[in-house]
Amino acid sequence: MAQYKIIYFGIKGRAEAFRMIFSVADVKYEDVIIKSGDWPAYKQSTPWGQLPLLEVDRKQLAQSSTICRYLGRQFNLCGENPWESAKCDEYVDATNDLIEEWVGFTFLETDEAKKAERKAKFIATLIPNCFSKLESIKEKNGGDFLVGKKLTWADINVADKLQIIEDDVDPTVLEGYPNLKKFKNAVLSLPKIKAYVEKSGYSYKGLENNLGE
Amino acid sequence: MAQYKIIYFGIKGRAEAFRMIFSVADVKYEDVIIKSGDWPAYKQSTPWGQLPLLEVDRKQLAQSSTICRYLGRQFNLCGENPWESAKCDEYVDATNDLIEEWVGFTFLETDEAKKAERKAKFIATLIPNCFSKLESIKEKNGGDFLVGKKLTWADINVADKLQIIEDDVDPTVLEGYPNLKKFKNAVLSLPKIKAYVEKSGYSYKGLENNLGE
Ligand SMILES: N[C@@H](CCC(=O)N[C@@H](CS)C(=O)NCC(=O)O)C(=O)O
Ligand SMILES: N[C@@H](CCC(=O)N[C@@H](CS)C(=O)NCC(=O)O)C(=O)O
Repeated sequence: MAQYKIIYFGIKGRAEAFRMIFSVADVKYEDVIIKSGDWPAYKQSTPWGQLPLLEVDRKQLAQSSTICRYLGRQFNLCGENPWESAKCDEYVDATNDLIEEWVGFTFLETDEAKKAERKAKFIATLIPNCFSKLESIKEKNGGDFLVGKKLTWADINVADKLQIIEDDVDPTVLEGYPNLKKFKNAVLSLPKIKAYVEKSGYSYKGLENNLGE
Repeated sequence: MAQYKIIYFGIKGRAEAFRMIFSVADVKYEDVIIKSGDWPAYKQSTPWGQLPLLEVDRKQLAQSSTICRYLGRQFNLCGENPWESAKCDEYVDATNDLIEEWVGFTFLETDEAKKAERKAKFIATLIPNCFSKLESIKEKNGGDFLVGKKLTWADINVADKLQIIEDDVDPTVLEGYPNLKKFKNAVLSLPKIKAYVEKSGYSYKGLENNLGE
């Protein structure tokens, strides 16, 4: 069995979906946490000046969606055929557009008026656009998952993002999207994921504000 | 053989890498162009309200990196093993961060002072950060490609982005990165890609400004 390390900050952030995937797959990994004081020096040694990283037998892989997909593939959580794998990618990319805008107004935007304006647009336009599409995908697919009839890494990745938005932006954000809400709850209630989340203890934010992201 | 359609606007934009991949693989596709006047109506029928889309035997796939990866996989251009496939993903994601910022200041930013400020930061910081990493990857890997010893979809995707930046931001942007420049030229000079580019005739911009992107 390969030796895995996740290298990230002590938050959920872009690494929580990896940790959930390891839990579901029952695979051991080392959870290396970089403290914010150590970051400026450590940053120089990273491939793109950012975290998270995955180490597999000392070889490094960067970029959060890339890492998530790689773990999904290694642990047989990426659909039954190339089309299903591509659908996993599509749903992850579509929700990335949303989450990058959340990162933008939450952590990067420094002008308070702009922050409020972007957040309002996020709630009024971007969320309904994306969630109504996901809702109809879930409605058509039936069952508990986004793609096919089996759990994939995309389910975990997307459910984690829905939880971020619910926790950080608006706790009622999934009202009006019953299938999507049911999906998120089903994924995050899988016994191994639930057990992981209960002991994880990371929060969504914290360090990032100090990192000049 | 599957029936393929690319559905996009009449520009290079996010679809040019797909068109190059089809050329390299010698696979026929229909290049469906949506005119800007038809877009508001057509938009309603798309899965995420955006283009490009790929149709494979009438089934639709969205999201440009997803489509590119899927075509790479179908046409055997995604590395020799899961690690090489993941490295393709990493390089595409890392350069996406760059290109999304280019889209941001070029098409989305409306405040002229902000536009100039973001472009200056792009040239002074983001490009050197990303290009110096790619330069050292190319230096280490040797040969003509980014991953392993064979052409991958990531080569085509990244070379296309480098060309966009060279053409639109600064024609001297690759000076100082000799291996990266050699890589871009090698990929875009592959006979089938060269032949495609010579007849393609799409430009980088055009419609997007009218689309309220
Ligand atoms: N596209 C990258 C973005 C990574 C990223 O933005 N990382 C942040 C933390 S979530 C970071 O390293 N910030 C510190 C810095 O940039 O110095 C990914 O998805 O992995
Ligand atoms: N994340 C998407 C972004 C797609 C996107 O931004 N498409 C633009 C054209 S390049 C678009 O459809 N703009 C028209 C609109 O949003 O109405 C992808 O990579 O495919």
